[in-house]
Amino acid sequence: MRRLTTKDAGFEKELRALLQRDEEAVRGISDSVRTIVDDVRTRGDAALVELTQRFDQTDLSGGLAVTEAEIDAAIADCSKEALDALEVAAQRIEAYHEQQRPEDKQWADELGITLGWRWTALDAVGLYVPGGTAAYPSSVLMNAIPARVAGVERIVIVTPAKDGALNPLVLAAAKRAGVTEIYKIGGAQAVAALTFGTETIKPVDKIVGPGNAYVAEAKRQVFGHVGIDSIAGPSEITVIADEASDPVQIAADLLSQSEHDALSQSILLTPSASLATSVEGEVNRQLTDHPRRDIAKKAWDEQGVIIVTQDLADAAAASNIIAPEHLELVVDDPEALLPLIKHAGAVFLGRHTPEAIGDYVGGPSHVLPTSRSARFSSGLSILDFVKRMSVTGCPETGFREIGPAAATLADIEGLPSHAASVTLRLGPQKD
Amino acid sequence: MRRLTTKDAGFEKELRALLQRDEEAVRGISDSVRTIVDDVRTRGDAALVELTQRFDQTDLSGGLAVTEAEIDAAIADCSKEALDALEVAAQRIEAYHEQQRPEDKQWADELGITLGWRWTALDAVGLYVPGGTAAYPSSVLMNAIPARVAGVERIVIVTPAKDGALNPLVLAAAKRAGVTEIYKIGGAQAVAALTFGTETIKPVDKIVGPGNAYVAEAKRQVFGHVGIDSIAGPSEITVIADEASDPVQIAADLLSQSEHDALSQSILLTPSASLATSVEGEVNRQLTDHPRRDIAKKAWDEQGVIIVTQDLADAAAASNIIAPEHLELVVDDPEALLPLIKHAGAVFLGRHTPEAIGDYVGGPSHVLPTSRSARFSSGLSILDFVKRMSVTGCPETGFREIGPAAATLADIEGLPSHAASVTLRLGPQKD
Repeated sequence: MRRLTTKDAGFEKELRALLQRDEEAVRGISDSVRTIVDDVRTRGDAALVELTQRFDQTDLSGGLAVTEAEIDAAIADCSKEALDALEVAAQRIEAYHEQQRPEDKQWADELGITLGWRWTALDAVGLYVPGGTAAYPSSVLMNAIPARVAGVERIVIVTPAKDGALNPLVLAAAKRAGVTEIYKIGGAQAVAALTFGTETIKPVDKIVGPGNAYVAEAKRQVFGHVGIDSIAGPSEITVIADEASDPVQIAADLLSQSEHDALSQSILLTPSASLATSVEGEVNRQLTDHPRRDIAKKAWDEQGVIIVTQDLADAAAASNIIAPEHLELVVDDPEALLPLIKHAGAVFLGRHTPEAIGDYVGGPSHVLPTSRSARFSSGLSILDFVKRMSVTGCPETGFREIGPAAATLADIEGLPSHAASVTLRLGPQKD
Repeated sequence: MRRLTTKDAGFEKELRALLQRDEEAVRGISDSVRTIVDDVRTRGDAALVELTQRFDQTDLSGGLAVTEAEIDAAIADCSKEALDALEVAAQRIEAYHEQQRPEDKQWADELGITLGWRWTALDAVGLYVPGGTAAYPSSVLMNAIPARVAGVERIVIVTPAKDGALNPLVLAAAKRAGVTEIYKIGGAQAVAALTFGTETIKPVDKIVGPGNAYVAEAKRQVFGHVGIDSIAGPSEITVIADEASDPVQIAADLLSQSEHDALSQSILLTPSASLATSVEGEVNRQLTDHPRRDIAKKAWDEQGVIIVTQDLADAAAASNIIAPEHLELVVDDPEALLPLIKHAGAVFLGRHTPEAIGDYVGGPSHVLPTSRSARFSSGLSILDFVKRMSVTGCPETGFREIGPAAATLADIEGLPSHAASVTLRLGPQKD
């Protein structure tokens, strides 16, 4: 863990250096991913079966799809407590995203020209769900429910199934979220199948969801053929906390990201040097018997940062450099601090909104921009599953007003048929 | 040109094959682009000067930036007619995008939990403007004005300047649009400079604008460090026209895309076999003395398609397979047809709205999804230059209602500090 003070000369440079993580992860695998993608594109299901045998040691020659019976058996295996908690989450995610539907708009301007736009849903979306310990039921809800609320008709999950086994609560979450198809495939081969289709799997229009470096590189390569979400990096949290904050709670909040992954980054910003010190001690205390100690301790030791600021406004300014995925405002009046926050994926207000609320039951999607990409991108939402057509319609009078300027610009740009498409409609009196 | 009929067996398969274009353009350049990007990232301005000498035969050792004096001299060189037409376009683009600003929203749910989101603008955006004949003043307006209306403070143009020369109307458009910096660099090196910064050029948060294969590959490689817009493919138009349409006008509309580029695709959908035939003849007539005959004829011969449909609804269904960048509805009642259109970048209504209106003066950005990507993406808009933070704030009562479900799910997912961050706030009575 590094401790910094905003007043120090070189603070910003030092902070920016600490924010650099995981740069080179996908280098060197581009060619092998391309070979896999091409193989699936060319040979379809046969390639999927072979590649799944090779990479996941799983025999899918009997079929790629998870059956209705498998899903129902899995749900029967889940505890009532788990299913109830999943239901709380699902209802809250649905309710939040219902508020997000963008509206069509159409108007006539002063020349009588119709202008506006119309939103329509994507036809089909693929959701990559990692296998093993990273198969989070909550992520299924957080990706699939916004798609379903947006009106997407086909929602397809791909997930690697070592020896055919799948996480039962992942299947329960998929059913609850309205997922329409599930296939036991993973890696770059699953991304290729969703993009180009195979005999069994019809192609989708966009692929979302986190994955390992191969999945991320495959998404990069197929971008354009299909839409993709942003490439997820290691998780992060920044906590802005005042003197009155409970160091035990703040330490748990910081570790809730450190425990994800050794590259996860947790940052505390506080104007209180004494809180900084007590949180540091408390983090180390909570790490001593942490069930995920190896990961959490490595992440905290190597990526953790505590920054003492001059005041809360100074903390907000430092947070804007960080552009964190998750930002907690653990202060008396978080609403007063909120207008100073320019770049963050999700903001959690006050002393009773730990970031874990947002991971599960808050309502907004927990799929959020990492690695400072909150500077230029947003968390997953309805808007990822709809697209907008612009609409323009000129009555003859309006066309005669603005057409000549279009023809002039087309001439200047050396595009004669552009100009002709206008001047022919203006009639022979032109020129 | 290929002529099809929707009634034919195999129509959809044949159409889909014709829609495949330009697949392999960026293969094989990945490594050389990576070398350029790394060089600029490591050596900054020195690399830019050397690479610009090598690729553009231009000496920038005296400075990378276009000066205010150069801009003013360029504007003095522009005709009044050109500047007036540019002003018509700029005002209309501004007015349209002013309507597009997304709204913040905040509410309390039935548990008193604050939910919502806030939009903020990106700090800095880079705009790639191609050099030579593809340096379109209109594209400067169409990219930069939405950014400025969104509230972006730094808008930076990069554009290759062979021998230091720049298109005067491009500079006039940049000034009118509120561009704050212009640098005479292009290619992958310009993308790298905008992404990582150099001694002269501060980094930006997102890079937009079209470019050649090297620019497109560089944008792919830096995606994640910065945001990028979609990768632009060759231009396309689909025209749905009824029997009453003027074949001379429709032919000009089709050629207005064919003239862009030999890979541009123009498609006519009409229920009228006689219009199909007369448009075909008229296209060939307009091609005979076309100033860009080589390009336009190759594009029409190789990529052009005329499809005879059963009726207008059938034409709309075929158009949804195409998911065209530009779609004209040249019919008596375009508003009646509009609800059947699911996938298109921009729709132009009626007999007096040729697509060229949208290229210059309609109002919506002419930066639109190509190569069927209207299935999953939208044209450039304000939304490309803002991002959304989700907001969640629990009062203690609301937290006590939903917290236990979050802790349950965190336990199931094996994330103990996530659970602890909740249970510590629920107090010792928990369990």
